[in-house]
Amino acid sequence: MAGFSHRSPVMFQHCDPAGIVFYPRYFEMINAVVETFFDTAIGWSFHQMHSVDRVGIPTGKIEAEFHAPSRLGDDLDWVLVFEKIGGASAAYVLRAYCGDEARLTARGTLVMVDLDRMTSRRWPEAIRQKLETFLEVHS
Amino acid sequence: MAGFSHRSPVMFQHCDPAGIVFYPRYFEMINAVVETFFDTAIGWSFHQMHSVDRVGIPTGKIEAEFHAPSRLGDDLDWVLVFEKIGGASAAYVLRAYCGDEARLTARGTLVMVDLDRMTSRRWPEAIRQKLETFLEVHS
Amino acid sequence: MAGFSHRSPVMFQHCDPAGIVFYPRYFEMINAVVETFFDTAIGWSFHQMHSVDRVGIPTGKIEAEFHAPSRLGDDLDWVLVFEKIGGASAAYVLRAYCGDEARLTARGTLVMVDLDRMTSRRWPEAIRQKLETFLEVHS
Amino acid sequence: MAGFSHRSPVMFQHCDPAGIVFYPRYFEMINAVVETFFDTAIGWSFHQMHSVDRVGIPTGKIEAEFHAPSRLGDDLDWVLVFEKIGGASAAYVLRAYCGDEARLTARGTLVMVDLDRMTSRRWPEAIRQKLETFLEVHS
Repeated sequence: MAGFSHRSPVMFQHCDPAGIVFYPRYFEMINAVVETFFDTAIGWSFHQMHSVDRVGIPTGKIEAEFHAPSRLGDDLDWVLVFEKIGGASAAYVLRAYCGDEARLTARGTLVMVDLDRMTSRRWPEAIRQKLETFLEVHS
Repeated sequence: MAGFSHRSPVMFQHCDPAGIVFYPRYFEMINAVVETFFDTAIGWSFHQMHSVDRVGIPTGKIEAEFHAPSRLGDDLDWVLVFEKIGGASAAYVLRAYCGDEARLTARGTLVMVDLDRMTSRRWPEAIRQKLETFLEVHS
Repeated sequence: MAGFSHRSPVMFQHCDPAGIVFYPRYFEMINAVVETFFDTAIGWSFHQMHSVDRVGIPTGKIEAEFHAPSRLGDDLDWVLVFEKIGGASAAYVLRAYCGDEARLTARGTLVMVDLDRMTSRRWPEAIRQKLETFLEVHS
Repeated sequence: MAGFSHRSPVMFQHCDPAGIVFYPRYFEMINAVVETFFDTAIGWSFHQMHSVDRVGIPTGKIEAEFHAPSRLGDDLDWVLVFEKIGGASAAYVLRAYCGDEARLTARGTLVMVDLDRMTSRRWPEAIRQKLETFLEVHS
Protein backbone atom coordinates (compact mmCIF):
# COMPACT_ATOMS: atom_id res chain seq x y z
CA MET A 1 0.00 0.00 0.00
CA ALA A 2 1.32 3.40 -0.93
CA GLY A 3 -0.20 6.45 0.69
CA PHE A 4 0.41 9.99 -0.50
CA SER A 5 2.21 12.07 2.12
CA HIS A 6 2.15 15.83 2.45
CA ARG A 7 3.26 18.22 5.17
CA SER A 8 1.65 21.59 5.84
CA PRO A 9 2.11 24.07 8.67
CA VAL A 10 -0.67 25.43 10.86
CA MET A 11 -0.54 29.14 10.16
CA PHE A 12 -2.07 32.21 11.76
CA GLN A 13 -4.92 32.30 9.24
CA HIS A 14 -6.11 28.85 10.36
CA CYS A 15 -6.47 29.63 14.08
CA ASP A 16 -9.41 30.85 16.08
CA PRO A 17 -9.68 32.96 19.23
CA ALA A 18 -9.09 29.82 21.30
CA GLY A 19 -5.70 29.53 19.56
CA ILE A 20 -6.56 26.28 17.81
CA VAL A 21 -7.39 25.45 14.20
CA PHE A 22 -10.91 26.58 13.31
CA TYR A 23 -12.39 23.43 11.81
CA PRO A 24 -13.62 24.93 8.49
CA ARG A 25 -9.93 25.75 7.82
CA TYR A 26 -9.17 22.02 8.13
CA PHE A 27 -11.47 21.47 5.15
CA GLU A 28 -9.51 24.04 3.15
CA MET A 29 -6.35 22.11 4.08
CA ILE A 30 -8.04 18.81 3.12
CA ASN A 31 -8.98 20.25 -0.25
CA ALA A 32 -5.42 21.51 -0.72
CA VAL A 33 -3.98 18.05 0.03
CA VAL A 34 -6.33 16.45 -2.51
CA GLU A 35 -5.44 19.16 -5.04
CA THR A 36 -1.71 18.66 -4.45
CA PHE A 37 -2.15 14.88 -4.74
CA PHE A 38 -3.84 15.17 -8.13
CA ASP A 39 -1.18 17.60 -9.33
CA THR A 40 1.94 15.81 -8.14
CA ALA A 41 1.01 12.13 -7.73
CA ILE A 42 -1.53 11.75 -10.54
CA GLY A 43 -0.15 14.37 -12.88
CA TRP A 44 -3.50 16.07 -13.39
CA SER A 45 -3.50 19.61 -12.03
CA PHE A 46 -6.71 21.39 -11.05
CA HIS A 47 -5.80 23.98 -13.67
CA GLN A 48 -5.67 21.33 -16.39
CA MET A 49 -8.79 19.67 -15.02
CA HIS A 50 -10.95 22.78 -14.66
CA SER A 51 -9.66 25.23 -17.25
CA VAL A 52 -8.62 22.90 -20.06
CA ASP A 53 -10.47 19.59 -19.68
CA ARG A 54 -13.59 21.23 -18.19
CA VAL A 55 -14.12 18.60 -15.53
CA GLY A 56 -14.14 18.89 -11.76
CA ILE A 57 -14.12 16.61 -8.73
CA PRO A 58 -16.55 18.13 -6.23
CA THR A 59 -17.00 16.46 -2.87
CA GLY A 60 -20.28 14.52 -2.58
CA LYS A 61 -19.92 13.83 1.10
CA ILE A 62 -17.29 14.15 3.75
CA GLU A 63 -16.88 13.37 7.42
CA ALA A 64 -14.15 14.29 9.82
CA GLU A 65 -13.31 13.33 13.35
CA PHE A 66 -11.05 15.70 15.26
CA HIS A 67 -8.96 13.70 17.73
CA ALA A 68 -6.94 16.52 19.26
CA PRO A 69 -6.63 20.27 18.63
CA SER A 70 -3.87 21.70 16.44
CA ARG A 71 -2.10 24.91 17.31
CA LEU A 72 -0.25 27.71 15.55
CA GLY A 73 3.17 26.43 14.49
CA ASP A 74 2.30 22.73 14.44
CA ASP A 75 3.42 20.84 11.36
CA LEU A 76 0.72 18.51 10.10
CA ASP A 77 1.69 15.32 8.30
CA TRP A 78 -1.10 14.18 6.02
CA VAL A 79 -1.46 10.66 4.63
CA LEU A 80 -3.98 10.05 1.87
CA VAL A 81 -5.18 6.65 0.69
CA PHE A 82 -8.21 5.55 -1.28
CA GLU A 83 -10.77 3.03 -0.10
CA LYS A 84 -12.79 2.59 -3.26
CA ILE A 85 -12.58 3.80 -6.86
CA GLY A 86 -16.00 3.73 -8.49
CA GLY A 87 -16.96 4.47 -12.08
CA ALA A 88 -17.23 8.21 -11.51
CA SER A 89 -16.30 8.49 -7.87
CA ALA A 90 -13.47 7.86 -5.44
CA ALA A 91 -13.63 7.44 -1.67
CA TYR A 92 -10.56 8.49 0.29
CA VAL A 93 -9.30 8.49 3.84
CA LEU A 94 -7.06 11.32 4.88
CA ARG A 95 -5.30 11.28 8.23
CA ALA A 96 -3.34 14.12 9.81
CA TYR A 97 -0.71 13.72 12.48
CA CYS A 98 1.52 16.08 14.40
CA GLY A 99 4.51 13.93 15.27
CA ASP A 100 2.99 10.75 16.68
CA GLU A 101 -0.30 12.33 17.67
CA ALA A 102 -3.34 11.78 15.45
CA ARG A 103 -5.15 15.06 14.90
CA LEU A 104 -7.94 14.16 12.51
CA THR A 105 -9.32 11.47 10.24
CA ALA A 106 -11.41 12.52 7.27
CA ARG A 107 -13.33 10.35 4.81
CA GLY A 108 -14.54 11.98 1.63
CA THR A 109 -16.09 11.00 -1.68
CA LEU A 110 -15.08 12.79 -4.84
CA VAL A 111 -17.41 12.71 -7.81
CA MET A 112 -16.10 13.38 -11.26
CA VAL A 113 -18.32 15.81 -13.17
CA ASP A 114 -18.48 17.42 -16.55
CA LEU A 115 -18.42 21.12 -15.65
CA ASP A 116 -20.37 22.29 -18.69
CA ARG A 117 -23.22 19.80 -18.20
CA MET A 118 -22.84 19.38 -14.41
CA THR A 119 -23.37 15.64 -14.83
CA SER A 120 -21.13 12.86 -13.54
CA ARG A 121 -18.77 11.14 -15.95
CA ARG A 122 -16.37 8.19 -15.74
CA TRP A 123 -12.75 8.59 -14.73
CA PRO A 124 -10.41 8.56 -17.73
CA GLU A 125 -8.83 5.10 -17.77
CA ALA A 126 -5.26 6.37 -17.32
CA ILE A 127 -6.35 8.36 -14.25
CA ARG A 128 -8.22 5.40 -12.79
CA GLN A 129 -5.15 3.21 -13.09
CA LYS A 130 -3.03 5.75 -11.26
CA LEU A 131 -5.65 6.25 -8.54
CA GLU A 132 -5.77 2.50 -7.98
CA THR A 133 -2.12 2.47 -6.96
CA PHE A 134 -3.22 4.49 -3.91
CA LEU A 135 -5.88 2.01 -2.81
CA GLU A 136 -5.49 0.98 0.80
CA VAL A 137 -4.76 -2.73 0.96
CA HIS A 138 -6.51 -4.64 3.72
CA SER A 139 -4.73 -7.80 4.74
CA MET B 1 -40.55 19.67 17.44
CA ALA B 2 -39.10 23.13 17.13
CA GLY B 3 -36.19 23.66 14.79
CA PHE B 4 -34.14 26.84 14.59
CA SER B 5 -34.47 28.51 11.19
CA HIS B 6 -31.98 30.86 9.60
CA ARG B 7 -31.59 32.24 6.10
CA SER B 8 -28.26 33.19 4.53
CA PRO B 9 -27.35 34.16 0.99
CA VAL B 10 -24.72 32.48 -1.14
CA MET B 11 -22.25 35.27 -1.79
CA PHE B 12 -19.30 35.75 -4.12
CA GLN B 13 -16.80 34.80 -1.43
CA HIS B 14 -18.37 31.33 -1.11
CA CYS B 15 -18.10 30.32 -4.77
CA ASP B 16 -15.36 28.50 -6.64
CA PRO B 17 -14.22 28.64 -10.28
CA ALA B 18 -17.01 26.21 -11.19
CA GLY B 19 -19.48 28.87 -9.94
CA ILE B 20 -20.76 26.75 -7.06
CA VAL B 21 -20.21 26.89 -3.32
CA PHE B 22 -16.71 25.63 -2.41
CA TYR B 23 -17.51 23.07 0.29
CA PRO B 24 -15.14 24.41 3.00
CA ARG B 25 -17.23 27.60 2.86
CA TYR B 26 -20.31 25.53 3.75
CA PHE B 27 -18.57 24.68 7.02
CA GLU B 28 -18.04 28.37 7.70
CA MET B 29 -21.77 28.84 7.10
CA ILE B 30 -22.59 25.87 9.34
CA ASN B 31 -20.47 27.37 12.11
CA ALA B 32 -22.20 30.72 11.61
CA VAL B 33 -25.65 29.12 11.92
CA VAL B 34 -24.62 27.38 15.16
CA GLU B 35 -23.14 30.66 16.44
CA THR B 36 -26.30 32.58 15.56
CA PHE B 37 -28.43 29.87 17.18
CA PHE B 38 -26.54 30.12 20.46
CA ASP B 39 -26.73 33.89 20.37
CA THR B 40 -30.38 34.36 19.48
CA ALA B 41 -32.18 31.15 20.49
CA ILE B 42 -30.16 30.17 23.56
CA GLY B 43 -29.14 33.67 24.63
CA TRP B 44 -25.47 32.76 24.98
CA SER B 45 -23.32 34.63 22.49
CA PHE B 46 -19.90 33.36 21.42
CA HIS B 47 -18.50 36.59 22.83
CA GLN B 48 -19.98 35.86 26.25
CA MET B 49 -18.96 32.22 25.99
CA HIS B 50 -15.37 32.74 24.88
CA SER B 51 -14.35 36.10 26.25
CA VAL B 52 -16.28 36.21 29.51
CA ASP B 53 -17.14 32.66 30.55
CA ARG B 54 -13.95 31.18 29.04
CA VAL B 55 -15.69 28.16 27.56
CA GLY B 56 -15.99 27.02 23.96
CA ILE B 57 -17.94 24.49 21.94
CA PRO B 58 -15.47 23.03 19.44
CA THR B 59 -16.71 20.45 16.96
CA GLY B 60 -15.60 16.91 17.81
CA LYS B 61 -16.82 15.39 14.57
CA ILE B 62 -18.92 16.43 11.64
CA GLU B 63 -20.23 14.91 8.46
CA ALA B 64 -21.98 16.50 5.53
CA GLU B 65 -23.72 15.21 2.46
CA PHE B 66 -24.09 17.61 -0.43
CA HIS B 67 -27.27 16.82 -2.31
CA ALA B 68 -27.11 19.49 -5.01
CA PRO B 69 -24.78 22.41 -5.74
CA SER B 70 -25.58 25.95 -4.59
CA ARG B 71 -24.87 28.94 -6.74
CA LEU B 72 -24.15 32.64 -6.34
CA GLY B 73 -27.38 34.43 -5.38
CA ASP B 74 -29.16 31.40 -3.94
CA ASP B 75 -30.81 31.96 -0.58
CA LEU B 76 -30.20 29.06 1.76
CA ASP B 77 -32.77 28.19 4.41
CA TRP B 78 -31.16 26.37 7.30
CA VAL B 79 -33.03 24.28 9.86
CA LEU B 80 -31.20 23.16 12.97
CA VAL B 81 -32.40 20.49 15.40
CA PHE B 82 -30.62 18.45 18.04
CA GLU B 83 -30.57 14.66 18.16
CA LYS B 84 -28.93 14.13 21.53
CA ILE B 85 -27.80 16.32 24.41
CA GLY B 86 -25.08 14.58 26.42
CA GLY B 87 -23.39 15.68 29.64
CA ALA B 88 -20.79 17.79 27.85
CA SER B 89 -21.81 17.33 24.24
CA ALA B 90 -24.65 17.94 21.81
CA ALA B 91 -25.32 16.25 18.47
CA TYR B 92 -27.14 18.30 15.88
CA VAL B 93 -28.58 17.91 12.41
CA LEU B 94 -28.50 20.92 10.17
CA ARG B 95 -30.27 20.90 6.83
CA ALA B 96 -30.06 23.54 4.11
CA TYR B 97 -32.63 24.09 1.41
CA CYS B 98 -32.99 26.47 -1.49
CA GLY B 99 -36.71 26.71 -1.98
CA ASP B 100 -37.90 23.09 -1.98
CA GLU B 101 -34.56 21.62 -2.98
CA ALA B 102 -32.39 20.02 -0.31
CA ARG B 103 -28.82 21.21 -0.68
CA LEU B 104 -27.01 19.60 2.22
CA THR B 105 -27.46 17.68 5.44
CA ALA B 106 -24.81 18.02 8.14
CA ARG B 107 -24.48 16.16 11.42
CA GLY B 108 -22.08 17.55 13.98
CA THR B 109 -21.15 17.01 17.60
CA LEU B 110 -20.28 19.98 19.78
CA VAL B 111 -18.21 19.40 22.89
CA MET B 112 -18.26 21.89 25.67
CA VAL B 113 -14.76 22.71 26.91
CA ASP B 114 -13.11 24.85 29.52
CA LEU B 115 -10.82 27.04 27.40
CA ASP B 116 -8.21 27.57 30.09
CA ARG B 117 -7.81 23.88 30.87
CA MET B 118 -8.90 22.52 27.45
CA THR B 119 -10.92 19.83 29.20
CA SER B 120 -14.58 19.01 28.66
CA ARG B 121 -17.14 20.27 31.17
CA ARG B 122 -20.87 19.82 31.66
CA TRP B 123 -23.44 22.13 30.07
CA PRO B 124 -24.77 24.67 32.57
CA GLU B 125 -28.21 23.44 33.59
CA ALA B 126 -30.07 26.47 32.20
CA ILE B 127 -28.36 26.03 28.84
CA ARG B 128 -29.14 22.32 28.76
CA GLN B 129 -32.81 23.00 29.37
CA LYS B 130 -32.96 25.45 26.50
CA LEU B 131 -31.06 23.12 24.17
CA GLU B 132 -33.52 20.33 24.95
CA THR B 133 -36.38 22.38 23.53
CA PHE B 134 -34.65 21.95 20.14
CA LEU B 135 -34.47 18.16 20.35
CA GLU B 136 -35.93 16.50 17.30
CA VAL B 137 -38.95 14.47 18.31
CA HIS B 138 -39.31 11.10 16.61
CA SER B 139 -42.85 9.86 16.53
CA MET C 1 -25.34 63.07 0.05
CA ALA C 2 -26.69 59.62 0.64
CA GLY C 3 -24.36 56.89 1.81
CA PHE C 4 -25.27 53.21 1.78
CA SER C 5 -25.46 51.77 5.29
CA HIS C 6 -25.06 48.15 6.25
CA ARG C 7 -24.58 46.38 9.57
CA SER C 8 -22.69 43.12 10.01
CA PRO C 9 -21.58 41.25 13.11
CA VAL C 10 -18.03 40.21 13.90
CA MET C 11 -18.29 36.44 14.06
CA PHE C 12 -16.03 33.66 15.28
CA GLN C 13 -14.77 32.95 11.76
CA HIS C 14 -13.35 36.48 11.48
CA CYS C 15 -11.20 36.41 14.61
CA ASP C 16 -7.58 35.44 15.12
CA PRO C 17 -5.73 33.97 18.10
CA ALA C 18 -5.40 37.48 19.53
CA GLY C 19 -9.21 37.60 19.66
CA ILE C 20 -9.49 40.41 17.12
CA VAL C 21 -10.55 40.48 13.48
CA PHE C 22 -7.84 39.02 11.22
CA TYR C 23 -7.44 41.76 8.61
CA PRO C 24 -7.90 39.58 5.48
CA ARG C 25 -11.40 38.85 6.84
CA TYR C 26 -12.12 42.60 6.77
CA PHE C 27 -11.59 42.46 3.01
CA GLU C 28 -14.13 39.64 2.76
CA MET C 29 -16.53 41.89 4.71
CA ILE C 30 -15.70 44.84 2.46
CA ASN C 31 -16.44 42.74 -0.62
CA ALA C 32 -19.70 41.60 0.96
CA VAL C 33 -20.77 45.20 1.64
CA VAL C 34 -20.04 46.16 -1.98
CA GLU C 35 -21.92 43.06 -3.19
CA THR C 36 -24.91 43.85 -0.97
CA PHE C 37 -24.85 47.47 -2.14
CA PHE C 38 -25.02 46.47 -5.81
CA ASP C 39 -27.78 44.00 -5.07
CA THR C 40 -30.02 46.12 -2.88
CA ALA C 41 -29.20 49.77 -3.69
CA ILE C 42 -28.36 49.49 -7.40
CA GLY C 43 -30.58 46.51 -8.21
CA TRP C 44 -27.82 44.58 -9.95
CA SER C 45 -26.97 41.39 -8.12
CA PHE C 46 -23.61 39.66 -8.50
CA HIS C 47 -25.55 36.66 -9.79
CA GLN C 48 -27.12 38.75 -12.55
CA MET C 49 -23.82 40.48 -13.23
CA HIS C 50 -21.60 37.40 -13.38
CA SER C 51 -23.86 34.57 -14.48
CA VAL C 52 -26.25 36.36 -16.79
CA ASP C 53 -24.63 39.58 -18.03
CA ARG C 54 -21.09 38.09 -17.95
CA VAL C 55 -19.48 41.16 -16.45
CA GLY C 56 -17.61 41.61 -13.20
CA ILE C 57 -16.29 44.42 -11.03
CA PRO C 58 -12.87 43.29 -9.81
CA THR C 59 -10.92 45.56 -7.48
CA GLY C 60 -8.03 47.33 -9.19
CA LYS C 61 -6.57 48.74 -6.01
CA ILE C 62 -7.56 49.06 -2.41
CA GLU C 63 -6.17 50.54 0.76
CA ALA C 64 -7.34 50.24 4.32
CA GLU C 65 -6.40 51.89 7.55
CA PHE C 66 -7.34 50.07 10.73
CA HIS C 67 -8.05 52.60 13.46
CA ALA C 68 -8.92 50.22 16.30
CA PRO C 69 -9.31 46.45 16.63
CA SER C 70 -12.71 44.77 16.39
CA ARG C 71 -13.66 41.87 18.59
CA LEU C 72 -16.00 38.89 18.53
CA GLY C 73 -19.56 40.10 19.04
CA ASP C 74 -19.01 43.67 17.88
CA ASP C 75 -21.57 44.99 15.42
CA LEU C 76 -19.96 46.90 12.60
CA ASP C 77 -21.84 49.73 10.92
CA TRP C 78 -20.57 50.29 7.41
CA VAL C 79 -21.12 53.44 5.37
CA LEU C 80 -20.30 53.40 1.67
CA VAL C 81 -19.99 56.44 -0.57
CA PHE C 82 -18.37 56.99 -3.94
CA GLU C 83 -15.69 59.57 -4.65
CA LYS C 84 -15.50 59.28 -8.43
CA ILE C 85 -17.36 57.43 -11.14
CA GLY C 86 -15.17 56.99 -14.22
CA GLY C 87 -16.03 55.53 -17.59
CA ALA C 88 -15.33 51.96 -16.54
CA SER C 89 -14.36 52.45 -12.92
CA ALA C 90 -15.68 53.66 -9.58
CA ALA C 91 -13.73 54.79 -6.54
CA TYR C 92 -15.39 54.29 -3.18
CA VAL C 93 -14.77 55.03 0.46
CA LEU C 94 -16.07 52.57 2.99
CA ARG C 95 -15.98 53.33 6.68
CA ALA C 96 -16.77 50.95 9.53
CA TYR C 97 -17.79 51.98 13.00
CA CYS C 98 -18.69 50.15 16.17
CA GLY C 99 -20.99 52.56 17.95
CA ASP C 100 -19.12 55.89 17.82
CA GLU C 101 -15.69 54.36 17.37
CA ALA C 102 -14.14 54.33 13.88
CA ARG C 103 -12.67 50.91 13.16
CA LEU C 104 -11.45 51.19 9.60
CA THR C 105 -11.50 53.32 6.48
CA ALA C 106 -11.06 51.62 3.14
CA ARG C 107 -10.70 53.17 -0.31
CA GLY C 108 -11.11 50.91 -3.30
CA THR C 109 -11.43 51.17 -7.05
CA LEU C 110 -13.75 48.85 -8.92
CA VAL C 111 -13.16 48.25 -12.60
CA MET C 112 -15.93 47.01 -14.78
CA VAL C 113 -14.81 44.15 -17.01
CA ASP C 114 -16.23 41.90 -19.68
CA LEU C 115 -15.67 38.45 -18.17
CA ASP C 116 -15.39 36.65 -21.49
CA ARG C 117 -12.79 39.02 -22.92
CA MET C 118 -11.30 40.19 -19.61
CA THR C 119 -11.23 43.75 -20.91
CA SER C 120 -12.68 46.82 -19.27
CA ARG C 121 -16.00 48.17 -20.48
CA ARG C 122 -18.16 51.19 -19.71
CA TRP C 123 -20.79 51.23 -17.01
CA PRO C 124 -24.29 50.79 -18.44
CA GLU C 125 -25.87 54.24 -18.37
CA ALA C 126 -28.69 53.26 -15.99
CA ILE C 127 -26.15 51.85 -13.53
CA ARG C 128 -23.97 54.94 -13.76
CA GLN C 129 -26.91 57.17 -12.94
CA LYS C 130 -27.73 55.15 -9.87
CA LEU C 131 -24.10 55.04 -8.74
CA GLU C 132 -23.90 58.83 -9.03
CA THR C 133 -26.60 59.23 -6.40
CA PHE C 134 -24.05 57.79 -3.93
CA LEU C 135 -21.32 60.29 -4.77
CA GLU C 136 -19.96 62.00 -1.69
CA VAL C 137 -20.70 65.70 -1.86
CA HIS C 138 -17.93 67.98 -0.68
CA SER C 139 -19.17 71.35 0.49
CA MET D 1 19.93 44.87 -0.67
CA ALA D 2 18.52 41.46 0.04
CA GLY D 3 14.79 40.88 -0.36
CA PHE D 4 13.05 37.87 1.07
CA SER D 5 11.75 35.57 -1.67
CA HIS D 6 8.93 33.08 -1.37
CA ARG D 7 6.95 31.07 -3.91
CA SER D 8 3.34 30.01 -3.43
CA PRO D 9 0.88 28.41 -5.83
CA VAL D 10 -2.55 29.80 -6.68
CA MET D 11 -4.87 27.05 -5.50
CA PHE D 12 -8.55 26.28 -5.97
CA GLN D 13 -9.46 27.84 -2.63
CA HIS D 14 -8.14 31.24 -3.78
CA CYS D 15 -10.19 31.53 -6.96
CA ASP D 16 -13.56 33.10 -7.59
CA PRO D 17 -16.33 32.33 -10.10
CA ALA D 18 -14.44 34.37 -12.71
CA GLY D 19 -11.57 31.89 -12.32
CA ILE D 20 -9.16 34.47 -10.91
CA VAL D 21 -7.83 35.08 -7.41
CA PHE D 22 -10.47 36.66 -5.19
CA TYR D 23 -8.60 39.65 -3.77
CA PRO D 24 -9.28 38.99 -0.05
CA ARG D 25 -7.37 35.71 -0.59
CA TYR D 26 -4.35 37.77 -1.70
CA PHE D 27 -4.33 39.32 1.76
CA GLU D 28 -4.27 35.85 3.31
CA MET D 29 -1.28 35.09 1.07
CA ILE D 30 0.36 38.39 2.03
CA ASN D 31 -0.07 37.56 5.70
CA ALA D 32 1.39 34.09 5.08
CA VAL D 33 4.45 35.55 3.35
CA VAL D 34 5.04 37.93 6.27
CA GLU D 35 4.54 35.04 8.73
CA THR D 36 6.98 32.82 6.79
CA PHE D 37 9.48 35.68 6.63
CA PHE D 38 9.44 36.17 10.41
CA ASP D 39 9.75 32.43 10.95
CA THR D 40 12.52 31.61 8.51
CA ALA D 41 14.41 34.87 7.88
CA ILE D 42 14.13 36.52 11.30
CA GLY D 43 13.91 33.35 13.38
CA TRP D 44 10.85 34.49 15.30
CA SER D 45 7.85 32.28 14.57
CA PHE D 46 4.28 33.49 15.06
CA HIS D 47 3.91 30.66 17.56
CA GLN D 48 6.83 31.95 19.63
CA MET D 49 5.63 35.52 19.21
CA HIS D 50 1.97 35.00 20.10
CA SER D 51 1.92 32.00 22.42
CA VAL D 52 5.19 32.42 24.28
CA ASP D 53 6.28 36.06 24.07
CA ARG D 54 2.70 37.39 24.04
CA VAL D 55 3.31 39.97 21.36
CA GLY D 56 1.78 40.37 17.93
CA ILE D 57 2.36 42.39 14.77
CA PRO D 58 -1.08 43.45 13.54
CA THR D 59 -1.34 45.45 10.34
CA GLY D 60 -2.06 49.13 10.91
CA LYS D 61 -2.64 49.94 7.28
CA ILE D 62 -2.19 48.26 3.96
CA GLU D 63 -2.67 49.06 0.31
CA ALA D 64 -2.49 46.86 -2.73
CA GLU D 65 -2.54 47.46 -6.42
CA PHE D 66 -3.49 44.53 -8.62
CA HIS D 67 -1.67 44.80 -11.94
CA ALA D 68 -2.97 41.66 -13.64
CA PRO D 69 -5.24 38.78 -12.58
CA SER D 70 -3.80 35.50 -11.29
CA ARG D 71 -5.32 32.16 -12.21
CA LEU D 72 -5.56 28.65 -10.81
CA GLY D 73 -2.19 26.93 -11.23
CA ASP D 74 -0.09 30.08 -11.43
CA ASP D 75 3.01 30.10 -9.28
CA LEU D 76 3.47 33.43 -7.53
CA ASP D 77 6.97 34.66 -6.68
CA TRP D 78 6.88 37.07 -3.79
CA VAL D 79 9.64 39.52 -2.92
CA LEU D 80 9.51 41.30 0.43
CA VAL D 81 11.61 44.32 1.40
CA PHE D 82 11.23 46.92 4.11
CA GLU D 83 11.04 50.65 3.53
CA LYS D 84 11.24 51.90 7.10
CA ILE D 85 11.76 50.37 10.51
CA GLY D 86 10.28 52.60 13.21
CA GLY D 87 10.43 52.23 16.97
CA ALA D 88 7.40 49.95 17.13
CA SER D 89 6.50 49.65 13.47
CA ALA D 90 7.81 48.44 10.15
CA ALA D 91 6.71 49.42 6.65
CA TYR D 92 7.15 46.83 3.94
CA VAL D 93 6.68 46.48 0.21
CA LEU D 94 5.67 43.10 -1.09
CA ARG D 95 5.59 42.39 -4.80
CA ALA D 96 4.23 39.29 -6.52
CA TYR D 97 5.17 38.11 -9.97
CA CYS D 98 4.19 35.20 -12.15
CA GLY D 99 7.23 34.69 -14.34
CA ASP D 100 8.06 38.16 -15.60
CA GLU D 101 4.59 39.59 -15.13
CA ALA D 102 3.92 41.78 -12.10
CA ARG D 103 0.68 40.74 -10.44
CA LEU D 104 0.45 42.95 -7.39
CA THR D 105 2.32 45.42 -5.24
CA ALA D 106 1.34 45.73 -1.59
CA ARG D 107 2.55 48.20 1.01
CA GLY D 108 1.77 47.45 4.64
CA THR D 109 2.69 48.72 8.07
CA LEU D 110 3.12 46.28 10.92
CA VAL D 111 2.79 47.54 14.46
CA MET D 112 4.32 45.62 17.29
CA VAL D 113 1.91 45.25 20.22
CA ASP D 114 1.85 43.73 23.64
CA LEU D 115 -1.06 41.28 23.37
CA ASP D 116 -2.01 41.41 27.04
CA ARG D 117 -2.16 45.21 27.18
CA MET D 118 -2.94 45.80 23.48
CA THR D 119 -0.47 48.69 23.47
CA SER D 120 2.42 49.21 21.08
CA ARG D 121 5.93 48.33 22.20
CA ARG D 122 9.41 48.66 20.73
CA TRP D 123 11.00 45.99 18.58
CA PRO D 124 13.49 43.91 20.53
CA GLU D 125 16.94 45.13 19.50
CA ALA D 126 18.04 41.79 18.01
CA ILE D 127 14.90 41.68 15.88
CA ARG D 128 15.35 45.26 14.72
CA GLN D 129 18.88 44.53 13.60
CA LYS D 130 17.74 41.56 11.55
CA LEU D 131 14.84 43.50 10.03
CA GLU D 132 17.23 46.26 8.98
CA THR D 133 19.11 43.83 6.76
CA PHE D 134 15.94 43.69 4.63
CA LEU D 135 15.69 47.46 4.17
CA GLU D 136 15.39 48.42 0.54
CA VAL D 137 18.41 50.46 -0.48
CA HIS D 138 17.70 53.43 -2.73
CA SER D 139 20.65 54.43 -4.83
